[in-house]
This record gives sequence, C-alpha cells and structure tokens, in this order.
Amino acid sequence: MSAISPKVYVAVVGVGLVGTDFVNQLLSIPPHASPFHLISLTSSTRTIFDAANPIAPGTSWKPLLAGSSQRPDFKVLTEHLASLVAQNQKVTLVDNTSSDDVAALYPSFLEKGISVITPNKKAYSGDLSLYKSILRASETSGARFLNESTVGAGLPVISTLKELVATGDKVVRIEGVFSGTMSYIFNEFSTGRPDGPSFSSVVSIAREKGYTEPHPADDLNGFDVARKLTILSRTISLSPQTTSTSLPSLQSFASVQTTSLIPAALEGIPTGDEFISRLPEFDPHFDQMRAEASAEGKVLRFVGVVDVAGGQVKAGLEKYPTSHPFATSLGGSDNIIMFHTERYGSRPLIVQGAGAGAAVTAMGVLGDLFKLV
Amino acid sequence: MSAISPKVYVAVVGVGLVGTDFVNQLLSIPPHASPFHLISLTSSTRTIFDAANPIAPGTSWKPLLAGSSQRPDFKVLTEHLASLVAQNQKVTLVDNTSSDDVAALYPSFLEKGISVITPNKKAYSGDLSLYKSILRASETSGARFLNESTVGAGLPVISTLKELVATGDKVVRIEGVFSGTMSYIFNEFSTGRPDGPSFSSVVSIAREKGYTEPHPADDLNGFDVARKLTILSRTISLSPQTTSTSLPSLQSFASVQTTSLIPAALEGIPTGDEFISRLPEFDPHFDQMRAEASAEGKVLRFVGVVDVAGGQVKAGLEKYPTSHPFATSLGGSDNIIMFHTERYGSRPLIVQGAGAGAAVTAMGVLGDLFKLV
Repeated sequence: MSAISPKVYVAVVGVGLVGTDFVNQLLSIPPHASPFHLISLTSSTRTIFDAANPIAPGTSWKPLLAGSSQRPDFKVLTEHLASLVAQNQKVTLVDNTSSDDVAALYPSFLEKGISVITPNKKAYSGDLSLYKSILRASETSGARFLNESTVGAGLPVISTLKELVATGDKVVRIEGVFSGTMSYIFNEFSTGRPDGPSFSSVVSIAREKGYTEPHPADDLNGFDVARKLTILSRTISLSPQTTSTSLPSLQSFASVQTTSLIPAALEGIPTGDEFISRLPEFDPHFDQMRAEASAEGKVLRFVGVVDVAGGQVKAGLEKYPTSHPFATSLGGSDNIIMFHTERYGSRPLIVQGAGAGAAVTAMGVLGDLFKLV
Repeated sequence: MSAISPKVYVAVVGVGLVGTDFVNQLLSIPPHASPFHLISLTSSTRTIFDAANPIAPGTSWKPLLAGSSQRPDFKVLTEHLASLVAQNQKVTLVDNTSSDDVAALYPSFLEKGISVITPNKKAYSGDLSLYKSILRASETSGARFLNESTVGAGLPVISTLKELVATGDKVVRIEGVFSGTMSYIFNEFSTGRPDGPSFSSVVSIAREKGYTEPHPADDLNGFDVARKLTILSRTISLSPQTTSTSLPSLQSFASVQTTSLIPAALEGIPTGDEFISRLPEFDPHFDQMRAEASAEGKVLRFVGVVDVAGGQVKAGLEKYPTSHPFATSLGGSDNIIMFHTERYGSRPLIVQGAGAGAAVTAMGVLGDLFKLV
C-alpha cells in the first residue's frame, strides 16, 4: 500500500443545476485533500477534455466550457478515458444528466474499465436488460457503478441498503415517502384533521413554489416513486449475496404496481396550466378520502413499499395513524425511509431528510466519488 | 483495473458477543461473493494464524480456536500481517475488544500498512495524542482506519458525517440520543405526562433486562455519550477538509461537558446492587424534573450535542417539546441522530434505529470491511 493513492480522473457529463453544484463542490475541496483530477466537462452543446492539465480548484470553469469549439462526442470521450484506464489510472464518468441516451452508454463505459457515478435514475429503473448489461460489464472489468443519489438524493439510502444486503441481514420491507413533491403535498393536505386546504390548491401552490414539475401530472403519476422502488428492489434481488428472493423480477419501473393520483378524466391533458385549471373538479374526491382517514385517526401519505417478504413492489396513497413517524416526524418536502430487517427486529432503521435539491443531490454524487478513492 | 480484485486478509482480535457475531457474519457470505480471507483469530487466551489456509465459510471456528495452543502475541501477529503487506496484499486487523491495550497498538498496525477496523471507542475517544498518532500513521502508510460502529452501532452515522465533511457541507450542529440505555430509561420515564413510574424503578427494570451495565452508574455517568461525542467532534475538527473550526480541541472524552445523572451522594458506590438499593432516595428529585418538563409540554431526554457553530460539545439531560422527534419518534432503546447542516437547511438529516446490540454492531464492522474492497 502506498502513502499517496493515485488520483481518480473524473469526466463530467451534464452541467445543469445538479452538474453545476457538483463541479463547484468538487473544485472547492482543498487541493491538499483532493484525490480527484477533473479532466473533462460536457454540456449538451460543448465539451472539453485535457487529461494532462486537470481543471484546478477555484477555476472559473463555465467560461472555459463555453469557450470550447468542440462538440460533444461520446465515442471520442470513451476512447480518451479508455486510454487512461490502459495506463492503469482510475477513471470515472459522472453523468449528471437525466438522459436515456447517456444511460444507455453505461455498459460501454464500464466494460472499458471506466466507473460510472450518477443521480440519473434512467438506467437503473429502465429496461432490465440494460441493468443486467451494467452488472455484467462491471463484473467483467472491475469498474464500479454507484448511484446513491438516485434515491433520496444525498441521504444514505442506497449505501445503507447495500450494506444490509452485503453483510447478510434479511431485508423484510422497505417503506417510505420517496418523493419530495408528494411529501410536501400530503404534509400540507392531510394533517389528521377532517378538513383543510383543497387538494387542487395545495398542488397549485406546490407548482408555484417550483416543487412540482412544470406539468404536475409528471409527479402525480407516481412514476418517480416507481423508479426509485425499482432501484431498491433490484439492489436487493440482483445482489450477488442474494441467493433467493420472493421479489418480482421488474422488467422496468412500469412493472411496479403504481396507483396514479391523476383523475382518469385528466389523463393526457397536454399542458400543466390546463391540468391545474381543471384539478378543482376533483377536490370532493380528495376531500372525502381525507375525511375518511381522519375518522380513523389517520393521515394520507403517498408511499412506496418494497415488500420483500410478501414479494410485492407498490406505490400509492396509504393511510397512517397520526402517531406514525410518516405523520409526526415528516415536514416540508422531506423523504423518510424505513428499513425493516431481521437484525433490526421490530424497530426499523430510519433515514430522513431532504431527498431533492441540487446541493444535496450533488453531495451524494461527490460522496460516491470518494468511495472510489 | 482488474476483473478480480485481490482479497482482503482479515485478522480478528476479540471473539466475545460482537466478535462472535462478526465472524459468523463474515463466514456466512456466499463464497463466490466474499472478497475476504479470514486468516487469524485471537481471544484473550489463544490465537490462530494461517495465511495460506484461510478459514472457509461455514467452518466451525470456535473449536478451532479453542484447540490452539498458541498464546496471543501482538508483536508476532503484527510481523505476520506486515509480511503480507510486504507481498502487496490488503491486510486488516479487526478489533472487537473494548481494550485500551489493543487500542494503543493501532498506530503500530497502521504504520506497517495494516488497516484497522473496530467498534472499540477507546482509541478514538481517549488521549488526543493517540488519536493524532493514528491519523499520522494512516496518512504515512496509506492504511485506513474505519470506526462506523463506535457511534450508533450499524447505523450510518460516522460514514454520513465523513461524507458531509468531505464534500464540503458545513455541519452546524449534531444533536442526538446516543445511548441505547439512556434512550430506554427516558422513553419509559418521561412521556410528557407529569407522573409515571419512578426513576429508580425504570433503572432497576432496565438493569434486569440487561440494558444497563452491571453497575448502572457506568451508564448514568454519561461517559459513553461523551466518548461518542468526542469521536464525532474529532471527525469534524481533525478532517483534512476542515480548515478552521470553533470546536474545542478535546484532550479526551473527559473534556466533554458532561452532566452525570449519578446523585452526588451515590458517587463511588462500589457495587451495582448497593447503587440500585439506594437510588429510590433520589426519586423525588427526578419526579420534580419530570413534572417541571411536563408543565412546559416537554419530555426529558439524555442527549449529546456537538455544537459546531457555538464551539461546544456537551452531554446531559435536556427538555424537548412533546412534538419533537426525540419525543414522538423514539421508542425502545433506539438511537436518533440529527445532523443540522448548511445544505440541509432548516430540516436536519436524521438517522434512527437500534444503536446497540451484537448483531447490528458486528454488521457495522463488516460494512466497514466492505469499504476496503
């Protein structure tokens, strides 16, 4: 073992909100403590690459990228990075996009020995064949893929689950509020009292605050939660430590039993504005559900469940007693995740906190990068 | 990067409750998924070492160790392990004792390139000079020390804190219930109502259930919490990423401002039995504190605080509103830890769950071992 570990070469793809925060965080590590060489940046229109002259901490990198005349070319980037791997360097591609196209390239990076770190859920919650290609490529080359920020942003969710599985604990059930948007909406809408603000008004305010997608149906369909559950479920069922499981083999996130909150009559409405203007028609329906829950001493929460013992993965609206942590402890747009396992017995391991936002998402990505050092 | 990572050679010292669970968990990893060679076991009276023939998964290892005629000798063990390091192997010593003597040897292991993993709090909460020797030895040789299970057992506490610090988040305050014993005692004693069971009866029942040390004063003195706070505080203040801090430089856990719960008149009582028999004399004092808290709508909790912003590290009894997670969410002998940071803003990152017990402690140790792969 040598005193000075070789530095990890880092190529970043995607410099939007998360990508910008990630690069800023990376370049803010004090030089004496930084084990990284940032050698490449790629936006949707430009790219820079210079393995011999890494971007130094404190560099004003945005003008540097904006001034480049090179167009993005993943084939060329892969060749550049592979040649560093051939020189026995540790090389990582960080994908801060939400692109399906970039996700589809992970196997080709991994099989060339380039590790992949990303908050992008697409590859891990999409087609099972892509996920299996990723596992295979990683196993063959020894390059690693890390995706902490795909669930709960910077919260220690994936790493905790991997450790439970790797050390031989039996995960019985994972249950949580995985969407910051859904968390905010139901923390506001359902507090245990029989009445309160209308569902449509809460969604409308959430949209104004920027907590929802421009089209709120993209949150209310539950797909974001279904994607996260797919990632958790596969992390268990496709781990080399898992010899048998009752979990279903999810072909994609679409295989998760997901109960959408979009009223049937509003399915397919093209614009967010029209959707919001018509949502009040359905307030009585949500009012009634809230009143029924309240009559039972309960609140409504949109949760995701990976029921390992019962072999079920589902997302939807559930009722919880007002004394339950999903009611008492939750606030703002927090995520909360409960791991029920054999070793933890009757009282679950709980992780809670902001599960969205550029700074904490970027932190989870950078945290993964430190795991490669 | 090679497809097959070299295995990590593991030497285990201490085969008590935690040590036994650790070895059992290690040997339960399916052989195809195990990146470890278990090559040595050491109890207080015996040792075995065989680098050429690692102990195979499923081996009945207790008789193997019991049948050895070799006496423990750390000098010889260190030489054996150092010779493996010299052959470019990854080598780790796992200390599952709570021994000061073993803790004092960490620098000599580390400087020879042997990584150290332990749930033993002694080295990290004892003399600052020992801790600094550990840091120095690790930095010089590149060998690592990992101590997840020293705080909150298998809960992701140390790893979460390290990641916050490494990625440049500013920790403002860590506040938590760090002792499973103290958690149980006050969850039972103080529920928000003005009355309830007497303090002495709760302590007595906790002792019968095995939740306290044989001498309950060893819990009520708050030293266990002070040790954990010392570890957290040093993890922040002595990180290479931390350039300046208001935190005090703790010479040892004794430097933590700790408010003991041992009534002055019962200080120094030699036996747990006598202590328990005299504790009822002081019930009125605890009754009064509970009634006062209740009158303010609060509960009593024995907490630890690392107040980074305020430059203070303290352990003691505090009052929390009955709506606070320390009141609503806590139960059994759970730990709960809140990280208030710049990036997480007004809503902290929270980790909760069992923070003691052999199985979850051993899991945290094994989890650390996986971080070396």
